[in-house]
Formats: sequence, C-alpha cells, structure tokens
Amino acid sequence: MSTAARATRLDAAFSLDYGYAVHFTRDAFDPANPVLVEALRADAADGVARVLPVVDSGLLEHHPDLPARLAAYAAHHADRIALAGEPVVLPGGEASKQDPRHVEEVLDAINDRAIDRHAYVLAIGGGAVVDAAGYAAGIAHRGVRLVRMPSTVLGQNDAGIGVKNGINAYGKKNFLGTFAPPVAVVNDERFLTTLSDEDWRSGTSEAVKVALLKDPAFFAELERIAPAIAARDLEAMGVLVRRCAELHIEHITGNGDPFELGSARPLDFGHWSAHKLEQLSHLRLRHGEAVAIGIALDSTYALLDGMLADDDWRRVLALFQALGLDLVAPELEDPALLAGLQEFREHLGGLLTVTLIDAIGSGVEVHEIDLGMMGQAITRLQAASAELDATRGTAKG
Amino acid sequence: MSTAARATRLDAAFSLDYGYAVHFTRDAFDPANPVLVEALRADAADGVARVLPVVDSGLLEHHPDLPARLAAYAAHHADRIALAGEPVVLPGGEASKQDPRHVEEVLDAINDRAIDRHAYVLAIGGGAVVDAAGYAAGIAHRGVRLVRMPSTVLGQNDAGIGVKNGINAYGKKNFLGTFAPPVAVVNDERFLTTLSDEDWRSGTSEAVKVALLKDPAFFAELERIAPAIAARDLEAMGVLVRRCAELHIEHITGNGDPFELGSARPLDFGHWSAHKLEQLSHLRLRHGEAVAIGIALDSTYALLDGMLADDDWRRVLALFQALGLDLVAPELEDPALLAGLQEFREHLGGLLTVTLIDAIGSGVEVHEIDLGMMGQAITRLQAASAELDATRGTAKG
Repeated sequence: MSTAARATRLDAAFSLDYGYAVHFTRDAFDPANPVLVEALRADAADGVARVLPVVDSGLLEHHPDLPARLAAYAAHHADRIALAGEPVVLPGGEASKQDPRHVEEVLDAINDRAIDRHAYVLAIGGGAVVDAAGYAAGIAHRGVRLVRMPSTVLGQNDAGIGVKNGINAYGKKNFLGTFAPPVAVVNDERFLTTLSDEDWRSGTSEAVKVALLKDPAFFAELERIAPAIAARDLEAMGVLVRRCAELHIEHITGNGDPFELGSARPLDFGHWSAHKLEQLSHLRLRHGEAVAIGIALDSTYALLDGMLADDDWRRVLALFQALGLDLVAPELEDPALLAGLQEFREHLGGLLTVTLIDAIGSGVEVHEIDLGMMGQAITRLQAASAELDATRGTAKG
Repeated sequence: MSTAARATRLDAAFSLDYGYAVHFTRDAFDPANPVLVEALRADAADGVARVLPVVDSGLLEHHPDLPARLAAYAAHHADRIALAGEPVVLPGGEASKQDPRHVEEVLDAINDRAIDRHAYVLAIGGGAVVDAAGYAAGIAHRGVRLVRMPSTVLGQNDAGIGVKNGINAYGKKNFLGTFAPPVAVVNDERFLTTLSDEDWRSGTSEAVKVALLKDPAFFAELERIAPAIAARDLEAMGVLVRRCAELHIEHITGNGDPFELGSARPLDFGHWSAHKLEQLSHLRLRHGEAVAIGIALDSTYALLDGMLADDDWRRVLALFQALGLDLVAPELEDPALLAGLQEFREHLGGLLTVTLIDAIGSGVEVHEIDLGMMGQAITRLQAASAELDATRGTAKG
C-alpha cells in the first residue's frame, strides 16, 4: 500500500464565543455600588464567588484603606462574594513583569487558597500588575477567572481592557503571555485622582494613538480638551478614557483577528521603538511616555517619506506637548534602537508590518522601513522638539 | 449624581473559529510522504516554515536516526521547511512535566532561534513531552504554532490530539497549562512499533474509557480485537487508535465547551483516582495504567451503588485483563487517595462532577461520591482482581 493511500485525517473544528463587559464607575468599593458584585458572577452551588485580590503596591500607597474597604464591600455582599484571604501585593510598575517571582507569588496564592476555574483573581492596579496577575490567572488550571480593575489612565483605556496578559523575559517585553479575555473589567475613576502627574499624562498617549489611527474627530476633541487634561480635570480625562477604551474594544471585536494570528498589529503604531526605548532607559521611561516618543518618531518618518503632510505632523507634536508629554529622549541616539525593528518582526512573526499614518485619523500599514531615513527622522524630531521647547508658551494647544 | 447613574459599560463580544486536522499516516519522515510538509503551512513571504523540533529522549533511544531523517525530510522540502537547528531533547515520560526547567529549555530555544508566532514548534514524543513542549509553545509570544507528532498509543488517541497542554506543579497534575489548539497533529503508526509492551497496552485504557462512555459497539469491537492487540497486532491497534481519536475529536468539537468553562468533564471517567494513583506511585504507574485502575474502581463504585449491572461490570474488568492491564495497585490502600476527590473538584472548579457509567456505552454525571462506599469499592475490586488472577487463562477474552 502506498504512503499516500494510507494517509487519512480527522478534522477538528469548532467556534467559541467570547464576551466581557468594561464598566466605568466611581468608587467601586462603596457597598452601595453594584458594579463589582455583578461582575463577579458566581456559579458555585452556594452562589458565592471566591475572590483572590492582587493589588499594586503603588496604588496601596495612595489608597492604604483599599484592603479594608474591599473587605467591607465583600462583607456587605457576603451572600455573593467571599475573599480568599488578604490581597497579594505586587510591586507597582514594570517591576512586577520583570521578575517571574511575582507571577509565582500569585500562583502560590492560587494554589494555597484553592482558587479554582470558577473562582476569581481580582487584579487591582496599574497595567503591569494587571498583566502579571492576569498571566498567573491565565496559566493556573489552564485559566481561572479574571476581573481587572486597572487603576491608571493607561490601564483603563488600553492595557487593562483587552484580551492579553504577559510578562517580560529574555529582555523582551511580553515574551511570555497568553490571550485570555477577562470575565469583566471595572474602571473606577476614583483611582485616577491619586495618580502622579507622570502617570496621569503618560496614559494619554494611547488615546492620541487610536485617534491618529482611526478617529480624526476624537483627535480634534483631544486638541480641544488637552489643556483641561493637563490641568488634571477628571471630567476631561473621563472623555479621553472612555472614547479610547471604546475604540480599542471596537478594534478587538471588529477586526476579525482578536488573538492576532495574522501579521498585522494595527494598534502598534509607534510601538516598535517604544518597547525598545523603555528597555534602553531601564524603565525610566514609562510605557506611555515611550509611546508618545515612538509615535512622534514614526510620524516624522512618515513626514520624511512624503506620506504625511507637514501640517498634520505639526498637530501631532503639538498635541503631545499640550498634554505635557516629551517628544524625545536620550535613548533615541542609542544604536541599539534600530535593532528593535527586528525584535518587533519576531514578536509579530513573519512579515514586518509597521503601522504609520498618512493623515490625522488614517493608519496605513507598511512592510519596509528604510533605516537611513529612520535615522534622519530621529534628527528631525530632535530639532523640532528643541524648536517647540524654545517657543513653549506661545505654541497653540 | 448617584453611583448607579454614573455607571456605564462597553460590551466586548466576538467569536473565534478554531480548526486543525489529525492525520494518520505511516513513516511521516519518508521524503515522499506529503503529510508533514502540508501540515506545516507557511505564510512567511518566502513560503518557508521555520520549525523548532522538540523530541522525546525515550523515542530517540528507539529511533536514533530520527534527527537525521527529519533533517533529510526538511532538506528534501527545503522550499517549504527550514529546521531551526538541532532538536531540543526532553526526557521521556512524566519527568518532562515534573520539572519546569524542561519548559524553560524549550523557551530558551524559542528565544535563541527566533521562533516567532508564525514559526512552529514540532513536538515529537509521548504525551508528557508533547504536553510540556506544547505549554512552552502556548506561552511564548502568547502562542507560537504547534504541530504535534505523538509517538505513543496514548498520545495518538487522546493526550496528543486535543486542545490542552500543561505541566505539573505544586504536586498537582497539569496545574499549569493553557487551552491552545495545535495547527495539526500527525500520528505516525511507525512509532507504535517500537513501544515497550507497557506503553503499548497502557494507551488502550483511554479507548476503553471512551467506548464505555459513548460507544457500546466500539466496546464490543475492543472485546473482539483485545487478544490481537495484546499480541501487538498493528492493524488491530490502528482500529483502536483511530476510533478512539475520532470519539475524542467528536467530543471536543461537539460538546459546546471545548475549553471546559463549565463544571462537567465528561471524559474524566476514572481520572480523579488515576491522577492521584500516579502521584502516590511516584509515577511508577503510567497514566494509562492508572486510568485502567481508576475506571475499574469507579465502575465498581457504580456497581455497589446499584447503577451498573453485574454483567456489565464483569465485562469492564475482563476487557482490561484481556488487554494486559492491571485492575489494582498497592496505592489503592493509601488513605491519601480519597483526598484526590477534593483536588479534582478544585481543578474543575465549583461543583464536584464525576462521570460514572450506568451501562456499557453510557456515561452519567454524579455530583456526590459516598466516601464509605468508595472504600468498599476498593475492597470489592481487590477481591475481584484476585479472583480473576486465580482463573487467568480460563477466563474468556
């Protein structure tokens, strides 16, 4: 019998429906606030959701009463929620993604406290803590339930509302991770009021990004409200966070590739250099700060390439300035920066795909980047930034 | 403004289609055999699939020419396949799932050899090696592509063809893992010819299991071909492997819950005790051997509970004996065995759900197990096994 004649096959095919809600609320731990208890849907026989809280140490500094308030909330809803012990505290910022021991701390607690596939990890904190806790939840028992409460602008409008988790390894951002949609996301704007100015403004760059890629009206709105945001107006920030989150959710659910099986990564505008700048700065640069520089750089590349009009380019730089975000960092001159393009290709797989813009609100994919021209873009951006600094105060917001 | 009035929500909802083929072939590394090259679909610009091989050390002992034959196969198909270096060799058997360093070895290679989300891990070996390599593939870059070539009966009819991966941690089977369907599975029956007698027969218990749960005609077929299988007839084993794989695929794709979000785990018949017996025996018992004992035990429980007829119960025990599988092990007397029920509940989450049978080919779920009766079932099974041993040779197959 020939080999070909012997070969037979079975086909395994199925579809899965995914769904989760992103809630916007104020003071989620007010016992009268029903959002969190409704997010923690229990299907155990007794109707009580068992919950392991994981909390960001930086958030705890500003909200030292958080564990007590969470415990009081759970006690008030004892028929629906049972906390599985005290919160696991992870270090705020990228540190929680840099050292695998923090994921192990969450896994230890999942094991010790018998968190099963019908119980919850409740991850409360910045994007990095939510990512690390979400990764632990994603791999324990092949996935325990996750409810995220992102506490930063970046977390609430981007990192905390999507379908990914991850930690860094081998010196690479998010080398380890899974696609694992949460059960729910609860965005509590109360957390935003205690952010440092740096965290407050750095989260806005992802909103600028999605506006540049998809929504010129939102970009114009951001130009209008940038001064209020820079002055820490919570209502103005609420407009930014909600619309940015909405555009992200539309992207995830509407692009046909939520788990990124293709080569395209249309929301990664400015991100190849942003990831590298963060590393080269040894995390001195926040993700959002690096993204602002990355977008400014790739916009400048698009300008030099003749793809983007000078006027649009100036609006991009001016908006970042109005939001208080720097356009450059010393790491732009590190020769290792351009190696980030190759790493980015590897992370995507296959073809290099970089998203640029050819107008405000119009993203386009390119598959070739001229390294020489990218070098010129760095020089041009540095010059433009110096000029803007010199005229700061007279520039229009 | 009241809290309730402020609360707003966005809903993220999407569907994903999953699909993969399970191929049955003989001598997949024959350059004339197209199955593997077709399974390694490339979408890189050059049409070449980059492949990191991960191979089971136990398989290598019996097939020392495997790396050379794989390299020759890739060279013959150089327009379609490029090997990313020599195979990573993982220890055969449960050892590769017991020590997280083996997952790290695969992750190191994925990083060192720049395996991206469009490149492949080709996992070749027993169920444990395929599980460990698959876990590494599942978490690197949030999932690189995986093609599995299970080399054992158990791998080809069960462990290697589904949607899960995992390793052991905290002394618990598969504590860490993900749901990550492979791109394809290639079952090469040539690998079965070099299995030890223990590995050959231990893989048959999963076929007995699915027959007992779902297919009385398959069970009768197994009774008929058991002597040929015990005599290492490859054609008879092919019948068992293919029908068992088919029932598994039908289950995964047809039950509406391939990623096991509910409490039910209908294919885990006999598995609460099997997992525990493996641990208590310090892995002296193979998974399939433990499953045979676990099924015999839960069938005996069903008998004592009045759920299963005496005649059906005897057929279950007789088939395992005809296949050369033991019905008991000293670990049945370990008091820690019954603690396995609680661990099983935790792993499932929520409600305890154990699948029993009320007839050959008819699985039923129960949510209560009487520990006293389970103790009696152990005693009854030990007695029945001793009786069968005494009459071995005269018993009908």
